Formats: sequence, C-alpha cells, structure tokens
Amino acid sequence: MERDNIAQIDRIFHPRSIVVVGASNREGNLGRMFVEPTIQAGFEHLYVVNPRENEVLGLKSYPSLKDIPEHLDLAIIATGAQTVPQIINECAENGVAGAVVFTAGFSEAGEEGRKRERELLEVAHKGGIRIIGPNCVGIYCPSAKVANMWGLPTESGSVGMISQSGHFAQIFPTVAASKGVRFSKVVSCGNESDLNAADFLEYLGHDPETKLIIGYIEGIKEGGRFFKVARQVSMTKPILIWRGGLSQFGTRAASSHTGALAGSNHIWRALCKQAGVITVNSAQELLDLVLAFYYLPLPKGKRIGIVSSPGGLAVTACDACAEFGLSLAEFSPQVQQRLRQAIPWAGTSMKNPVDVSIVAGLAPELFLKPVQIVADNVDMVYIISGLPNQPFIDALVEAGKSIEKPLAVCLYPREAVTEEYLPLLRAGVAAYTDSIRGILALSRFADYSEFLRASLDDCQRQNVGGQQELGRNNE
Amino acid sequence: MERDNIAQIDRIFHPRSIVVVGASNREGNLGRMFVEPTIQAGFEHLYVVNPRENEVLGLKSYPSLKDIPEHLDLAIIATGAQTVPQIINECAENGVAGAVVFTAGFSEAGEEGRKRERELLEVAHKGGIRIIGPNCVGIYCPSAKVANMWGLPTESGSVGMISQSGHFAQIFPTVAASKGVRFSKVVSCGNESDLNAADFLEYLGHDPETKLIIGYIEGIKEGGRFFKVARQVSMTKPILIWRGGLSQFGTRAASSHTGALAGSNHIWRALCKQAGVITVNSAQELLDLVLAFYYLPLPKGKRIGIVSSPGGLAVTACDACAEFGLSLAEFSPQVQQRLRQAIPWAGTSMKNPVDVSIVAGLAPELFLKPVQIVADNVDMVYIISGLPNQPFIDALVEAGKSIEKPLAVCLYPREAVTEEYLPLLRAGVAAYTDSIRGILALSRFADYSEFLRASLDDCQRQNVGGQQELGRNNE
Repeated sequence: MERDNIAQIDRIFHPRSIVVVGASNREGNLGRMFVEPTIQAGFEHLYVVNPRENEVLGLKSYPSLKDIPEHLDLAIIATGAQTVPQIINECAENGVAGAVVFTAGFSEAGEEGRKRERELLEVAHKGGIRIIGPNCVGIYCPSAKVANMWGLPTESGSVGMISQSGHFAQIFPTVAASKGVRFSKVVSCGNESDLNAADFLEYLGHDPETKLIIGYIEGIKEGGRFFKVARQVSMTKPILIWRGGLSQFGTRAASSHTGALAGSNHIWRALCKQAGVITVNSAQELLDLVLAFYYLPLPKGKRIGIVSSPGGLAVTACDACAEFGLSLAEFSPQVQQRLRQAIPWAGTSMKNPVDVSIVAGLAPELFLKPVQIVADNVDMVYIISGLPNQPFIDALVEAGKSIEKPLAVCLYPREAVTEEYLPLLRAGVAAYTDSIRGILALSRFADYSEFLRASLDDCQRQNVGGQQELGRNNE
Repeated sequence: MERDNIAQIDRIFHPRSIVVVGASNREGNLGRMFVEPTIQAGFEHLYVVNPRENEVLGLKSYPSLKDIPEHLDLAIIATGAQTVPQIINECAENGVAGAVVFTAGFSEAGEEGRKRERELLEVAHKGGIRIIGPNCVGIYCPSAKVANMWGLPTESGSVGMISQSGHFAQIFPTVAASKGVRFSKVVSCGNESDLNAADFLEYLGHDPETKLIIGYIEGIKEGGRFFKVARQVSMTKPILIWRGGLSQFGTRAASSHTGALAGSNHIWRALCKQAGVITVNSAQELLDLVLAFYYLPLPKGKRIGIVSSPGGLAVTACDACAEFGLSLAEFSPQVQQRLRQAIPWAGTSMKNPVDVSIVAGLAPELFLKPVQIVADNVDMVYIISGLPNQPFIDALVEAGKSIEKPLAVCLYPREAVTEEYLPLLRAGVAAYTDSIRGILALSRFADYSEFLRASLDDCQRQNVGGQQELGRNNE
C-alpha cells in the first residue's frame, strides 16, 4: 500500500505526458500558469483541452480528452468547479494516473463545496485516479521539466516542499532560488481531498532527489500517520515546517482558506519535537533555516564561537545564544594566546565573543585568521563584520573553503542577501541580514544535529544512513 | 539640578564652537570621522588640535588647546588614553562645557583602565566639564550641524537615539534614514563615566525636537532614576529599547564591551512594562517598530482588520495577532455586505481576514475599496498583496492619504523596503518584508497606545499633553 502510494505519486511528479484541461491564452488563466512555464522548461508531451480555443500558446487545443491520441500520465484541471467530476471521469477512460485540480470552490467553500468534493473523490476512486488538490496551484519538478510558475529554475536540486498555500508554494521557491537554493519537488496540496501532507512527506522521504524537506501546513488530515512518517524521515532528512492556523484567529482563517480544522500550538510543538520536525515561525525564518540546512555541514555539537567587529551586535548575539540554546565556548589561555598573535592591534578581546575591534571592521581581511583559530575550537562560528564589503566577502569565501565546520555571517546593515553574497553561500557560509536571525538559524540546525545524535544513540548507533549526505550544497 | 543637567547637555548638542583634539588626515582616524562630516554639514566654528599636523582636512591644526583664540563649547577627544586627563584639564582652562571622549582603554579594559577612568572623571568634575564616553563615537545633531558619521542626513527629524554601542549609534540611523526617518539627536554614550543613559533620556524627554526615543542599552548605571524618568517621558514620547547583556553569555560579553554589569531579562521586561518602555529583540525589530511609531497615527484600540490576497500569509498573520495580543475584528453582516459589493468576484471571503483572492493579487488596485471599508470598522488595517508592484503602491498611497487610521503592509516576497516603497511610508503606510514582523510592529504600537490610555485613566484624564503630536511623519 505504502509502495503503491509512492509509485503513484512518483508517476505524477515524473509524467511522460500531461494534459491541461481548461487552459486558455487569457492572462491570469490558471491553466496557462502551468502550460507556459512547462513549455519553457522543455516538456514535450503536453496537451491542452479547451473546446473554446483552437490553440493555446502554440499548442493545438483539443475539444475533449477523448480526442487526445496519447495515453496520459497526468491531468491538470483548471475548469469551472461543476465540470470537474465529469472531467475526472474522462481522465479515467484515458487511463490517467493522477489529476492536479487547480479549481477552487470545494470544501473550503461551505456545504455545497464539501458535497462537490465528495463527488469528485468518489469518481476518482472509482476510476483509480489519485488527486492533488482541489484548490491548489500544482506541482514543480525540474528534473521532469514540470513547472507551475514563471521564473523558477529549470535546474533540479535537493529541497522538497509541501505547501497547503498555493501562493507560498510558488513564491517561496522563487525567493529561495535567488539564494542559489534548488528544489527537487514542490507540491501545492490545497484541500487534500485525496493525497495529503503525510503522503507527500512519505514520498519525499523515499525520493532520492530530496535531501531536505520543508512545508507550510494549516491542518493535518492523518495526524498519527503524519508524525509516524515524520519520525522515520527526519532520521535521514531534516523536516522544517511553518504551521498556520494554530490560534483561534488563525484557525478561523484557515477554515475558509483550505478547510483545515483547528490545531493547538502547544500540542503541535510537542509532537514535532518528538518526531524531530523543526518548527519555524515566519517565511523569513524558513528561508534563514533553509540557508543553514542547505549550505552547511552538520555541526557536531552546540559550542559556538563569535568573531565580531561591532560590540553591540556581538553582545546581543551572545544573549541570543543563551536564549536559543547554543553554548558560548570558553577559550583556554593557549587559544587566547594564539588569537593574540593573530590580532596584535589594540581595543580587542580574545575571549568569546572575539572582538576584533573597528580595525578589522575597516580592514576585513583581518577577520580570516581569527575565524580559523576560533573554528578549531568550537562546533560552529558566527562572524559579524559591520562592513560586509568585497574584501570581507573574499576573506570569508576563503574561510568557508578551508573550514569544515558550519560558518554563518551577519551582513547587517545589508537588508537582503543579494547576488554579490552568493559566493559566500556557495563557499559554505550561511548569510543573514540580522544578527539575531543568524544565531536562531544556527541553533535550530544544532538542535537537529542533537536530535540525530540522540536518535542514533537510541538505535545503539546502528547505521541508519543518509545524514552524512546532508548540507554542503557548496563547491 | 535636573535643569542644570539638561542645559549642560543641550549646550553639548548645540555647541557654537567645537575643538577636535587628535584629529589627523589619516583614514580611519577617529577624530577625522567627526571632522569630515561636521565640515560637510556646514558647521563653522570648528577647530583641530594636533601638534603633529599643520592642517587637517583643510582646517588649521593648533599645537594645543591654549592656542585656540575662541571660547569653546564642546571638545571631541580622540587621542591616546594616557593623555586624556591632561587634555580635559586644558579644556577646563578654556571654559569648555562638555567633552566627548572617543578614546577607548578605560573601564572596559581591566583594572588599569578603571583607574584611568576615575582619574579622568576627577579632573572633569574639578573643571566643571561634563563627559560623554569614554569609548564612544560621539554625537549627531543635524539641527546644530554636528555629525559623527558620513552619509547621515543634514535634515533634522523627530527621533532621538541613545546607544551604548558606537557601531549601532552610527549604523542604525543610516539604515533608518534610508527609510525616510530623520533624527533630532543621536548620542553614543560609551562607558558613561559621567553622563549616562538616564541623563540623556531625561534630556530627550524635554527636547522639543524629539518625539520618539530609541535606545541600545547594555547596562544602566542609575536604574531607579532611569525608570523614574522613563515613566514620565513615556507619557508623551514613546521609548523603544533594545537591551543587550541580559544573559550569562551576553553579560560576559558586555563587560568587555562597555564595562556594563549583569542584568536579568525577566526583571528588565517587568520594569520596562511598568514604565511604558517598549522592549525590542533585534536591530530589525527596532527598525520595524520605528517605522510604525514614526509614520502612523496612534491606534485607538487593538482591533485589527486584514485584507489579503495570499491565503497562507493571512492565516499566519492571524496567528501572530493572537500571539502578540491584537484582536481580529468580527465583521457584522452589514459590513460583509458592503465588502461583497466591493469584491464581486469568486474565491473570496468577506470575513476577517478578508480574502480578496488571487484576482486582486494580480490587479492590485482592487485592494483599495476593501481596505477603505475594513478601515471604517477596525482600529488598524494590515494589507498583504503577494505582488507589491507599482499599481499596488499607487492604490495604497491613495488609501494612506484618505484613511486616518494606522495602515501597514506586507511587501513579501520583497526583501527590503527600497526607495520605490518610500511613498507608502510618507502616505502613512508602514511597510514590512515579512508578514509576521508587520503584525508584531502593529501590536507593539497598540500596546503603547493602550499604556497611554491606561495612564490617562490613572491621571483621571487630566491632559498631560504631547501624545497627540505623535507619529504621522507623512504628508
């Protein structure tokens, strides 16, 4: 049964042929939103059904599914809600394996919609078709040349994403892609009438392309199964989840968004912790954590060293270490002596945080040696320059290439990790624009590493495999 | 005594004449860091003392203070630590009112430094000179043409800042200035050997140029007085403080940064709450709150309305309202009816959060009417577009100009409030790049408003004046 699920989902993500029902040339048409980027990605066996069009974006438009000469793997449905069950029927006649239903107006839209969703599901079960959605924006799988959004990379990567928000399923990968992050699969799962978050989590857990799993979730249909799967998957692939609908206000909003039911923040966090799932609290935090998990090697422990030019940012970063559970390493006299040789100028401190003073702030190449010495004596290093200019980037790229431990940098006062900072990421230095956010990301990364170590201890150190492959998506 | 303090500090911030001791032409020289921008700002009675230079940046360099023909208000001292007490002596002979000591190597630098600081203070007291610092980067007062950093606006504004971090005293105003925020005074107070945070808070409380006070603090020398002053000042001017050194790690770091002593996070927050001081947790959060307090009118209550195109960001914003103490308004059938007339298309929700669907996401001018209707029925409005392009900016500028309540907008997936978004701020719409951060800023703003209302109730509604002038630094 589990294997069946996985094979069926895999056929949806890697279809040999796709039909888009209801696509038109009109701007803003949901079907077009899929057809256009999928043509651009180079997908060949792509068909359009729309009785009111002769061609859509250069593709011949068929009046109905019956007229298509080929056997189809995947149907994308973007028609009116009333017509969806009938279209699913026609899909079944063709032998379609799965249908992604973009159309809204189902269980998120009151009693009539719920009735319509039950009808859809009945037809699908009868025809042996798996459903993604309805009320979703589809899937993205660059290795299969399937795309549901303009501007996403055609290059494949190692991040799998499950999102119950359609907007977030399209926008987050776009933002992350601008930081060099590449995705294996993204699924917008909408109302989850059939396939749900637990199914996709299980699938991504088995997917050899996927090494890191992220999600936006509002409600979980099969809670028990979800956490059982998560517990297994998180042993080899980290899972980061942003959860919505965990308050009275959020639950009310979620019910008209995806039809999800109430959740409790407290219980959610406890279950996640047990299952090794890392919870995040905002879109920004999710990106922060992805940069750490995607680009850095796993830390071996929670001892951090900080090397900083600005004093205030270093002090507050230390407070954040205490708050988020990292341990500020204490340097032995020998280490302080080595640091003193590397930092001979005045106004400095050799204790942790190492204060390299305004001198190194103005001559950033002076950061390199202290960072290397500190790295030898901690599990991870956090660097705060105050002036993140090109010489600073160059010095840190150098450090990133030679140091086999997690490094992160605060780029404040920069406000975004723009293109000029991508060499840092690629050299294995996670970059943040706020001093506290970088510490939070490192601490969550260290939490996951600790979870893995504890789990391995539980398993009497039997090799569960996989976690050595994590991170280091850098040169 | 209090009046004396205030008059003395005012003479330091608004000097008629300044001498910079120890300035040179060398890049990175601390004195030069003051001389250069202060010349650029157009300050006229500026003198340099440096026996090793003939001129500095085009100014004649005097061999000693005695050689200066004019009576001086302010001395900036950027020499070696050993020479500082003698220079203070010479300042006293000239009749200097205050000295800002940039030089480090005092109480932050062990026993010898502490001894030197006591000596400095003794000389200053004897000579009747007030000291800012040592171990600081000076003051910025655009209305007096005094600047301690390149690139700060020469235009004056309403934000007063107290910072125990020199770096932050220079960098934060630069970042905030790029969002159109203007400052009345900034002081980097360093080790606070003489004048301390309580003095500056009291001064800014009385300063007619200042309407909003922000601070970065690591330790408070006169705790009782500080909170007594804060309690009075916060009745008319909001006070936002980022506190460092509130953990074992942070305290250790702070002691070698500014010599500050330990603090407890728990006690700190309780005291701040009582005094009406708003605490912040990062540089980013401080900027977020400044944008709300600087640009928006005070909310009359905590009822918020959300108008959104992306569903997931709306759901999680609702969760954040619950977490941070805002109340998601419930709309009457009449209000929902008005909204339905303004939003006739499908896939929408008239409940709060108002879901204007992907349609308005793609045609952002459609946000305008719903925002106006919602504004009529809540204390503040939060808008999430998903596609913050020019038509969206135009529509919101329109809304900002016509609506007399706090408006804020989430610009995600934008990563910075860049220049193109400044018209939003100027129209009274605070802008955020993460959906949760905007809600946090509004909630803190509403907390302050609630504090004011409660305080006014306590005072039996006697008019304490001033708070009506708050915010609305927009057209």
